[in-house]
Amino acid sequence: MLRVALLGAGRIGQVHARSITESGEAELAWVCDPVETAASTLAGRYGAKWSPEPGDAIEDASVDAVLIASATATHTDLIRASVLAGRKVLCEKPIDLDMARIDACWADIAGKAPFVMLGFNRRFDPTFREVNERVKAGEIGPIRALRVTSRDPQPPPGAYLAVSGGMFRDMTIHDFDMARFFLGQIVEVSAVASHNNDPVFVAAGDHAQAIVTMRNTDGALCTIVNSRSCAYGYDQRLEAFGDLGSLEAGNLTATAVRAFNAKETEAAGPVLNFFLERYLPAYKAEFAEFLAAIREDREPSVGFADGRAALVLAEAAIESVATGRVVPVTGG
Amino acid sequence: MLRVALLGAGRIGQVHARSITESGEAELAWVCDPVETAASTLAGRYGAKWSPEPGDAIEDASVDAVLIASATATHTDLIRASVLAGRKVLCEKPIDLDMARIDACWADIAGKAPFVMLGFNRRFDPTFREVNERVKAGEIGPIRALRVTSRDPQPPPGAYLAVSGGMFRDMTIHDFDMARFFLGQIVEVSAVASHNNDPVFVAAGDHAQAIVTMRNTDGALCTIVNSRSCAYGYDQRLEAFGDLGSLEAGNLTATAVRAFNAKETEAAGPVLNFFLERYLPAYKAEFAEFLAAIREDREPSVGFADGRAALVLAEAAIESVATGRVVPVTGG
Amino acid sequence: MLRVALLGAGRIGQVHARSITESGEAELAWVCDPVETAASTLAGRYGAKWSPEPGDAIEDASVDAVLIASATATHTDLIRASVLAGRKVLCEKPIDLDMARIDACWADIAGKAPFVMLGFNRRFDPTFREVNERVKAGEIGPIRALRVTSRDPQPPPGAYLAVSGGMFRDMTIHDFDMARFFLGQIVEVSAVASHNNDPVFVAAGDHAQAIVTMRNTDGALCTIVNSRSCAYGYDQRLEAFGDLGSLEAGNLTATAVRAFNAKETEAAGPVLNFFLERYLPAYKAEFAEFLAAIREDREPSVGFADGRAALVLAEAAIESVATGRVVPVTGG
Amino acid sequence: MLRVALLGAGRIGQVHARSITESGEAELAWVCDPVETAASTLAGRYGAKWSPEPGDAIEDASVDAVLIASATATHTDLIRASVLAGRKVLCEKPIDLDMARIDACWADIAGKAPFVMLGFNRRFDPTFREVNERVKAGEIGPIRALRVTSRDPQPPPGAYLAVSGGMFRDMTIHDFDMARFFLGQIVEVSAVASHNNDPVFVAAGDHAQAIVTMRNTDGALCTIVNSRSCAYGYDQRLEAFGDLGSLEAGNLTATAVRAFNAKETEAAGPVLNFFLERYLPAYKAEFAEFLAAIREDREPSVGFADGRAALVLAEAAIESVATGRVVPVTGG
Repeated sequence: MLRVALLGAGRIGQVHARSITESGEAELAWVCDPVETAASTLAGRYGAKWSPEPGDAIEDASVDAVLIASATATHTDLIRASVLAGRKVLCEKPIDLDMARIDACWADIAGKAPFVMLGFNRRFDPTFREVNERVKAGEIGPIRALRVTSRDPQPPPGAYLAVSGGMFRDMTIHDFDMARFFLGQIVEVSAVASHNNDPVFVAAGDHAQAIVTMRNTDGALCTIVNSRSCAYGYDQRLEAFGDLGSLEAGNLTATAVRAFNAKETEAAGPVLNFFLERYLPAYKAEFAEFLAAIREDREPSVGFADGRAALVLAEAAIESVATGRVVPVTGG
Repeated sequence: MLRVALLGAGRIGQVHARSITESGEAELAWVCDPVETAASTLAGRYGAKWSPEPGDAIEDASVDAVLIASATATHTDLIRASVLAGRKVLCEKPIDLDMARIDACWADIAGKAPFVMLGFNRRFDPTFREVNERVKAGEIGPIRALRVTSRDPQPPPGAYLAVSGGMFRDMTIHDFDMARFFLGQIVEVSAVASHNNDPVFVAAGDHAQAIVTMRNTDGALCTIVNSRSCAYGYDQRLEAFGDLGSLEAGNLTATAVRAFNAKETEAAGPVLNFFLERYLPAYKAEFAEFLAAIREDREPSVGFADGRAALVLAEAAIESVATGRVVPVTGG
Repeated sequence: MLRVALLGAGRIGQVHARSITESGEAELAWVCDPVETAASTLAGRYGAKWSPEPGDAIEDASVDAVLIASATATHTDLIRASVLAGRKVLCEKPIDLDMARIDACWADIAGKAPFVMLGFNRRFDPTFREVNERVKAGEIGPIRALRVTSRDPQPPPGAYLAVSGGMFRDMTIHDFDMARFFLGQIVEVSAVASHNNDPVFVAAGDHAQAIVTMRNTDGALCTIVNSRSCAYGYDQRLEAFGDLGSLEAGNLTATAVRAFNAKETEAAGPVLNFFLERYLPAYKAEFAEFLAAIREDREPSVGFADGRAALVLAEAAIESVATGRVVPVTGG
Repeated sequence: MLRVALLGAGRIGQVHARSITESGEAELAWVCDPVETAASTLAGRYGAKWSPEPGDAIEDASVDAVLIASATATHTDLIRASVLAGRKVLCEKPIDLDMARIDACWADIAGKAPFVMLGFNRRFDPTFREVNERVKAGEIGPIRALRVTSRDPQPPPGAYLAVSGGMFRDMTIHDFDMARFFLGQIVEVSAVASHNNDPVFVAAGDHAQAIVTMRNTDGALCTIVNSRSCAYGYDQRLEAFGDLGSLEAGNLTATAVRAFNAKETEAAGPVLNFFLERYLPAYKAEFAEFLAAIREDREPSVGFADGRAALVLAEAAIESVATGRVVPVTGG
């Protein structure tokens, strides 16, 4: 059994705690969170130790792995400490909002044969994953275009907006990774955005919606369509288009009911509205990959470099919005 | 150009008049209808002669073919007269509501090498036809079960009910033919029906809905689900189920719009609500088959015997409802 | 925590063991199975006691409830023993294949204020349940017709067929209960069946497919379409049709991928192929209802009488196939 | 009856000839085409006069209207001549590939109360039209984003590419108009394109695919996704996204058949593959609008200015691809 220390006992931390204990191959050894009641409650549920201090867990010699689900600003410090203590790491996205801190972290750990997996959960969503595998198996021939639709049901609170790093670093970061998952290396980014005249976004200097266009090394194009709100739920779709056809990943609904009446036919229910509900199987599969990579003594399928690359694309999108220019990228 | 006399200038007659003139291979020579203004108006639109007397057209030596779209009670007389005058005949369903009259008609014409096509338009509907062709090409392996859903948007007026011959002879007759189109010879019929406590149907001694179950010579089963009313439009579907899979014929909507909102997603519009709208392409294709059979000097793909066989099944369903027994049939 | 004894450590028993332990309100106290390794393995996984003898668990005074997932022939004896010992019971369907044994069991327990829930899992499937709730909320007006499509992916082995009690008692039993879930009391049953010329079914005197038609006290009609095999997976659908519209429960697929190529568009994957996969959430919800009824000190929503009524309908269907007659039923 | 002169007897001209004669309110008076057999054949079919010289028809005093379906390079001259002769004009898109010629044409006719309708047929497609009407009726609230997917089944021949004016002027021109149909005035355009390493497009200096992003005066965003080829047919979709939901216009298939087998379920056929087949109802409705505007003595719903504005957007897209910059536009 892999002994895992969980850093962060919030919403996402609770999901990870469940994945760990249900995996059958790992046990929850520690829960750390500065909010002591959060840490102790979650730890109590699974018979784990707890502490407000992540160092207590990281330094515990019986701990094999550290799962970092704490506030973004703490990620690089915790990665560094965990790797230097010899732990395997699974870290929630993003690594950080600041490239310099990411690079400094890497400089400190690069020589330590770091095992750092990044929590880009959507790569493990069964629907997106199936599309990716079928694309890679050649079903649609050479991929020419990728379209990612990613709309949140409701915008985050204004207070969160202020510290989020902005839409591209906070929300689109998932879609940048999805683009790389399908298209590999990105060489060019352009983006437009709109605040929809919404005073919350105007005040925050942030965007209510955005469209990002990218190109990879083969000339394949990608469109990301983002919105901070969506009346019909959490809209998470993509289309991979190739010479032989296309594969679409549709939304998920709670049931398979369809209604027919005098006004309409085949009406399905709203799409799953909450990211934990929508991506629950993805979180489980993500942790399974973490276990598999450790068991097979190989690199995880998505790592530190992927986390950095997604931020490279976010920075390019920010620059493109600011300058109105296509931005060439390296390392994206 | 085939010179066609159209008997009956009602709703269906007008559809046929258009099919004739748009076919490019036929011209409308006569329109006959006891309602003189109906006959003269329709004839005038296409430059045809008209008469209240069908005999005027049937006896016109320049007429090649007669299309019978008059009241059901007149069908056998008009078929007989037309065949004896040497005309090709396309007759709307049903041949008649009375088996004895059908058989008497056939006795009179059988020796005259009659060319009589029956207007079972649904055999020519592009969607049903594609399913039939793919089934016959072996796509689903041996067919084991057929399911026909056939619901009218609104019930006919009570006055029509009284002379309609009842649901099975009037409405289900199409579905009986569809069963034979897919399953060939039927050997057994059972039926249950309900008036839904609706006083109109109770008064008419007729049914608001019915379910018919049939078996063919290979042991394949068929279910027909009928309703006299349907809130979401004219529900016309079928499913052919075989060892290798199934093929479903779905409903048609006016456009390909889908709506997404806080209450529902992927909501299409109501299905096409009127039989002339739903089956317009079928009526055109039916007339094209009439022309093709004449041109190729062969029997039409659906003829007098098919019209009789559908009535055999209707009579069996009526008997089954009355007796509560499965009814063996011959000639169905 | 409710202490539960699980009788039967087979496929279904394992699903129930998981529902029990994941419920958060119950614990697995005992696992009993005549196959000792099965009992001990499953018990070991959850820290429960085990025995080849169900009596050991039933008589343990610390046991609150008994979940019967053993062979059908043992159900009535185990229900009787459990009720007489004062335990709450959740019993897998069917109660028994023989009406006399069912009635004898009831005669013995009726005076003991028995708490017996029947495991008609499909009532707890989220899709079917939503349709049922929306029907009962009046969304489609008075229900006029119910259509249940229920096809197994592959037929059971011949050896199972021989002891199964036949298709109606073994497979259709679920659909009979579904009919009652939507339509209440059934007053009339007719059925036709076919062995599809398949020597396995001919030899077993059983059916490869069947169609059952029923009527309830309001004149609403129901069709059940059954097949022992289905190329595209476990086909589990229904349609509730009423004066104001209809609600359809569709099949479930593993992912939301759709494929588009030169031959076809919008192609989804096969439907979930295995009943445990398809109905996993239903089993969990079923156990949750068991817990809720106990907690709220009320009768379970589906009980002994429902198990008996489903068998009444199965017997009527068997009689209808044998006699070719509509069979009136009481207690269905 | 409106007497119409048709200039151009090619593929599109033939479609218009049929719309004219089937309208019931117009007759085909002339067919002109430099290819004399084309002109005479088409004219012969409808009993019209013909000439290789468009002037013969335009100058015929009995002609009320001129429908210009000739080569693009002739459009402005024919518009000018027709307007100056006092004829109503329906002109196929685009007006011209050169803005100076368009403006010169307008300068010559502006004072003559010109009646010039532009043939942006997609505005009259029943599906797109329904979405537009529902958006304008407020169903989705303020529109925030429009997504247009427009993919041709196969690329045009290289010879056509050379004179087409390039993808944006030739193909995307329809989508630019669709953007304006939904979003009104466009103020900003950016575009990226790819030749997919296809030597035909490399040689022609043209694009195999492109993505155009635009913004309107309210900050609503639009994405156009174009491809010169599409394995599954003529992909013509759009999504209008607003605060209260979205409306999607889907593709059309020839029939409503869905296939289910061991590999897949709900597989529809390929989408309608040919623009004349896909947009046949749109061409009819377009001509009906031409007639209605004349009958009601009002401006047509889409006119010369719309044709010019679409080219403004095409020019901006070309500039954006060349410069890598967002291009502000006026008059778009």
